[in-house]
Amino acid sequence: MAQHVHNSYHPVDAAVLKRLREIFPKDRISNEPVDLMTYSYDATRKEYAPQVVIWPETAQEISDLMKVACNYRLPVYPRGGGTGLTGGALAVEGGIVLSLERMVKIGEIDEQNRLVTAQCGIPLAELKTAVQKKNLFYPPDPSSAKSATLGGTLAECAGGLNCVKYGTTKDWVMSAVAVMPTGEIIHVGSKARKSVVGYNLLQLLIGSEGTLAILTDATLRLIPYPKFRKSFYALYDSVMASAIAVQAMLQSGVTPSALEFIDRISLEAANNYVKDKQIPVAEALLLVETDGYDEQSMNEDLQILLELCKEKSASAIREAQTEEERASLWFIRKSLSPAMYAMAAFKANEDICVPISEFPAMLEEAYAISKRHNVITLCFGHAGDGNLHVNFMSNQEHDDDVEAAVNDLFRATVAHGGSISGEHGIGITKAPYLSYEMGERELRLLVQIKELFDPVGILNPSKIVMKKE
Amino acid sequence: MAQHVHNSYHPVDAAVLKRLREIFPKDRISNEPVDLMTYSYDATRKEYAPQVVIWPETAQEISDLMKVACNYRLPVYPRGGGTGLTGGALAVEGGIVLSLERMVKIGEIDEQNRLVTAQCGIPLAELKTAVQKKNLFYPPDPSSAKSATLGGTLAECAGGLNCVKYGTTKDWVMSAVAVMPTGEIIHVGSKARKSVVGYNLLQLLIGSEGTLAILTDATLRLIPYPKFRKSFYALYDSVMASAIAVQAMLQSGVTPSALEFIDRISLEAANNYVKDKQIPVAEALLLVETDGYDEQSMNEDLQILLELCKEKSASAIREAQTEEERASLWFIRKSLSPAMYAMAAFKANEDICVPISEFPAMLEEAYAISKRHNVITLCFGHAGDGNLHVNFMSNQEHDDDVEAAVNDLFRATVAHGGSISGEHGIGITKAPYLSYEMGERELRLLVQIKELFDPVGILNPSKIVMKKE
Repeated sequence: MAQHVHNSYHPVDAAVLKRLREIFPKDRISNEPVDLMTYSYDATRKEYAPQVVIWPETAQEISDLMKVACNYRLPVYPRGGGTGLTGGALAVEGGIVLSLERMVKIGEIDEQNRLVTAQCGIPLAELKTAVQKKNLFYPPDPSSAKSATLGGTLAECAGGLNCVKYGTTKDWVMSAVAVMPTGEIIHVGSKARKSVVGYNLLQLLIGSEGTLAILTDATLRLIPYPKFRKSFYALYDSVMASAIAVQAMLQSGVTPSALEFIDRISLEAANNYVKDKQIPVAEALLLVETDGYDEQSMNEDLQILLELCKEKSASAIREAQTEEERASLWFIRKSLSPAMYAMAAFKANEDICVPISEFPAMLEEAYAISKRHNVITLCFGHAGDGNLHVNFMSNQEHDDDVEAAVNDLFRATVAHGGSISGEHGIGITKAPYLSYEMGERELRLLVQIKELFDPVGILNPSKIVMKKE
Repeated sequence: MAQHVHNSYHPVDAAVLKRLREIFPKDRISNEPVDLMTYSYDATRKEYAPQVVIWPETAQEISDLMKVACNYRLPVYPRGGGTGLTGGALAVEGGIVLSLERMVKIGEIDEQNRLVTAQCGIPLAELKTAVQKKNLFYPPDPSSAKSATLGGTLAECAGGLNCVKYGTTKDWVMSAVAVMPTGEIIHVGSKARKSVVGYNLLQLLIGSEGTLAILTDATLRLIPYPKFRKSFYALYDSVMASAIAVQAMLQSGVTPSALEFIDRISLEAANNYVKDKQIPVAEALLLVETDGYDEQSMNEDLQILLELCKEKSASAIREAQTEEERASLWFIRKSLSPAMYAMAAFKANEDICVPISEFPAMLEEAYAISKRHNVITLCFGHAGDGNLHVNFMSNQEHDDDVEAAVNDLFRATVAHGGSISGEHGIGITKAPYLSYEMGERELRLLVQIKELFDPVGILNPSKIVMKKE
């Protein structure tokens, strides 16, 4: 476990602790080794121990903390559920981990305006369930939704299964309260559906991975909960055949609420993991869902997509007739992540995104790279968005072959007009590759914006852009 | 006509002109009085004469120009169709007007990925027509679309009639090329459908009213063109009754593609203007449209909304049975703008936006303000978004009563949780009221971001935030 206190940062020493304990009661500040250990890692399996963990309850407490942090120059790492896949929450310079997990209050669920306001530490699934009780729907749905917090999903601009129909987190947030690194509390965005008042500070914070400000409260847009949903899967004898079916569905005018691709090696891994062999194996599987407010038209939509899959030479199709069958289809998709954790100790889980037309070619590139570097590779993802998860498996944390494969993958992604991160962000794991996609001047703008918000360089430092000291 | 050269800016003198003529051929640079006059005003009817007008054709030319402008410290005002309603294109410090009207090339219409790339000077309606020929649809549709340029709509984050279903400009732009005030050319955004790579520079530029960078090329997202659309109007005996019908429709689960409100005085003004009396008069009129890819379900949607309007005690309903009838219904809406220009020499056309639940109360506020200050006031707007156009009419440019009414209106808007601009931007006309909606720290962030992009202060200066010198 690496413990790293940057030379230019002040350590969390006795004087600092004394000052912090004036703000936070005993049960909400800890430097016990067990806590430092618990909060030292995230879903990347990388570990960096903080020197202290703090659990604030209000924006004002965070503001007070940041003023102390500014004074001493202490690195502060805001943290949600720790489910990030690029290290956005890791305390890479030591210092303070600021866990928002006690900031879980849901404020008003405003049914007339279809808005909900909540504190940013609430697990996303909890928030989704709360609004669903009022027949309202908050679409963003990363597979980590049970543990991921609202704030984490805002900071990373999380995606998930239904972006092909509903877009990503940025499309659903209306306004937010945030604490700046200097301790100032700001309000960004508007509860009005349209607002063009000054620069878009809200969208500057969304996806900024907690490097510009700490989001404490957010107001989200909701829609009526789609009562009906139906799914099927289609198997294909080649990846290319499945890619052609994807294109046909996207051109049909019917928008699926999910359109997932899973390749053979991923299906086999899931099969080995679940053992009961209920998971079909083919060169490629497409999982397709439609949802809606009207059962008949939702069914009609599904049939249009299903017929297209048949036409485009699916070798088998299974349509879920009941809710249980639907759950069993989605169980295939949900098995992938635990199957991979069981399969190898480490993985480089990349989430590249290319224009839809490049999806087949990008898959071919991924397989060629996997072969070239002799790395076991599982490909699946949100085909409807061109968002492909390429998982390079390894049994060691530092693996030259995997690193070479990742490097080639990002080069190829940019060559195909794509983006090196569709929904996982940059954090620390992708920071070295940022220049593949962004020019020098654009990168300098990122650094300048970071410096503008955080002149002392204390909020989630050493993320996204490595600032030259 | 005010001609104002700020003390701290260098005038466009003979030396400057000589330098500019090295970049731009004779037919694309002019200081002829007729040109200076033509480019001195916009849809606000306010006038500020530039000292020279330039028509660039490429981003590179704009880059070369900005380097000269930086050297000399010359104010540069990028300009599209001049249809802005808050003075975003006005050359308030004199200097250079940079008209993008020769940058009208449409690049690839990429049908597979449903993307179009175009130069920013193209009139929006032309672009919409070009993609419609390929059965594709670019939804943003400000009523100025015939003259407004793509770049102008990006800079202002334009809205229009169909935002209630399709959102605003910011939801449809994928990536852009822009020239920074320093002359550097940057690429922002991605053609991939999902991208979380660094801060959202694209959305920072969208709606920044040409104060941060000059957008030269943009790639836009398209959807299949909705083949079918149908409209009706419903009349109401009171504004409140119409507001109740709006709420009911928005709660129905059916999303109209347009949902417009027009009040009695606006209908009367339209009637006086068109003279042939085909425009109905009532206390309130709602114009409702649905669109879709399937005629039957689009019709079903319309019937649901139409029945709701009846239930909520419409005094009369007229459903367009033919395309001609549909056009005649929308003619009512389209008559409003010319009717107002015919009615009075000046108007303060405010476009406040409030949460839907506040729409009825906000209307009452607008009428009370109008009465209090004895100003003739026409209210209409995008009821489905809570976006209300409140037009205070006057026969003089500076009217104390109108100014007092505007002031009260913005105070009331913010008190109702709304935004002082839904789609027109801030420009110069709303700049004095910015602090009603934004706090001191947030305003300072705007100034800091402006200074970061434009350290010399030459790009569209004196807009949005008045920088303290």
